[in-house]
Amino acid sequence: MMPSMTPGLGANTLLQPIVAFLGPVGSFSHQAAIECFGSSNNTLKAEISFNNAFSAVQSQEADYAIIPLENSSNGAVVQTLDLLADRENLYPDIIVSGEYYLSVHHCLLMKNALDGHGNTSEPNPEVSKFYSHPQVWGQCTKFLSAYSGVEKQDASSTSKAAEIVSKDNDPRSAAIGSELAGSINGLRVVKANIEDDPSNATRFLILQNLKSNRTQAVKPPQKTQSCSDPGSKCKSLITFMVDHTSPGALADALHVFKKYGLNLTSINSRPGGVKAWQYVFLVECQRVCGVHDDHVVEKVIDELRDITQTCRNLGSWEDQLMEK
Amino acid sequence: MMPSMTPGLGANTLLQPIVAFLGPVGSFSHQAAIECFGSSNNTLKAEISFNNAFSAVQSQEADYAIIPLENSSNGAVVQTLDLLADRENLYPDIIVSGEYYLSVHHCLLMKNALDGHGNTSEPNPEVSKFYSHPQVWGQCTKFLSAYSGVEKQDASSTSKAAEIVSKDNDPRSAAIGSELAGSINGLRVVKANIEDDPSNATRFLILQNLKSNRTQAVKPPQKTQSCSDPGSKCKSLITFMVDHTSPGALADALHVFKKYGLNLTSINSRPGGVKAWQYVFLVECQRVCGVHDDHVVEKVIDELRDITQTCRNLGSWEDQLMEK
Repeated sequence: MMPSMTPGLGANTLLQPIVAFLGPVGSFSHQAAIECFGSSNNTLKAEISFNNAFSAVQSQEADYAIIPLENSSNGAVVQTLDLLADRENLYPDIIVSGEYYLSVHHCLLMKNALDGHGNTSEPNPEVSKFYSHPQVWGQCTKFLSAYSGVEKQDASSTSKAAEIVSKDNDPRSAAIGSELAGSINGLRVVKANIEDDPSNATRFLILQNLKSNRTQAVKPPQKTQSCSDPGSKCKSLITFMVDHTSPGALADALHVFKKYGLNLTSINSRPGGVKAWQYVFLVECQRVCGVHDDHVVEKVIDELRDITQTCRNLGSWEDQLMEK
Repeated sequence: MMPSMTPGLGANTLLQPIVAFLGPVGSFSHQAAIECFGSSNNTLKAEISFNNAFSAVQSQEADYAIIPLENSSNGAVVQTLDLLADRENLYPDIIVSGEYYLSVHHCLLMKNALDGHGNTSEPNPEVSKFYSHPQVWGQCTKFLSAYSGVEKQDASSTSKAAEIVSKDNDPRSAAIGSELAGSINGLRVVKANIEDDPSNATRFLILQNLKSNRTQAVKPPQKTQSCSDPGSKCKSLITFMVDHTSPGALADALHVFKKYGLNLTSINSRPGGVKAWQYVFLVECQRVCGVHDDHVVEKVIDELRDITQTCRNLGSWEDQLMEK
């Protein structure tokens, strides 16, 4: 049975958690880590890959990792799904203990040399060249339509784009990225919120190690009610594989969730890694405290074990999605 | 109700179909088009994007499009899922009428200048620089481990890599790609099947236009039994959205497939495009001729329409997956 993973209501002031995130410094993962855990930088650890962030939690070098799972416009982050599916059992002690929704806003970032001339209400300033991550061009099409003749240079991250502009002698060079990427690299926000979709957001998962003694004391400073408050909603993540040659095997597995009255909030599938065209499914379900049995997820898992080839409970946490 | 989409057993010799695929010439999509429709090149039309291939079928400029849906190692092709989800109703007349499994093999391709010295049984030949699509490096790690010091240059496609090598004055330049990419660019296969996973394959969907008169006559030359032969298996693709605030809405929708005894062979979800964190689901189900009612898919759709927000039948076709 899983230990209690109810996060506390504030950061522990005696013991600072070590939180792994995908770098570089100034990335959206970094921003999520700051918003979720606070800005004591010495506890935030930039990793060069998602794998490294998972390994840091498995080896207990980090107390937590904060990892993007899906973006509201672009969908699931496939590398994260593959790491959670954990086909080679590299991360047996990792569980999900929370989630965080980060609003993703883009800014036009330029050097301070232009200071005193521009502000966020000015019309479009003169730009000689744009730098950003290639995914960003498609997220800021309306803003960029006023710059149809200006060269756009891909960078490996929005942080890197800001760094390039900070070192460029041309004061008309501009990066597109987060305010954080700008401030870390000494750039000025010339225009904020230039993204096409102001509701653009990324959902992050907070990972911790099931066996860690530290994370029993170190609680992520989440702001919501506890998972056990009546009416509050909890999500759980369960991964499983079924015998694909058995008709109805997937439907039977999904029927177990319905039998216990659990809402399915997401289903993803990835190649199972054993044989072509067999999949591992990642299912999130939601229970309501006071409505569902406290142990409903364990009961679902017990039934799933009988009808699946592999089945893993990756943990439960409070649902942070606010219905609008 | 959908018209009959049972493909015939041979190519129509009087009327050559126009088949759109994602270029450039020599791509794996091109190879799939050749294997599936034959090599009469004048009927195969290279498109610069998946969108263009869809548009060509919708506008009836092409009779068919052959589009990759998923790779056995890398999983779903997200752009294809988004185009099939068709959130803006740009492709209302497109249906899926077949599928094709293409074995994906990589070759070491070099210039003919080396001819007479190498053959596929030779030890690793000397290479000064490799060119390929960035995804390929990770698919040929065992072969490349013998070349740890050699520079690897990314190209936009394996075809492009072969083209670069064909124009390079250095005879030790090598591309990694398909035999087709090599032969189109006049390169020699120095080593075949250098991929790590010999079962690596990509599943393509064959699209056609519901309203086309031409595709009633032009049948893709598939090699299997007809969908109506007893015991043969048919897949269908259905997309739908559910009210995510209604508990159990997704489970209820999936239960309809179970109620009619249809096996679910795949489930994918993508952002619904209306509101953040709402999804469109793409579900494939399988019926067995002689076991299930001929009209079972229509019955499923009728029930789904009552409990979903949007629901579309994207067609049915013979299952081409051979169980091993």
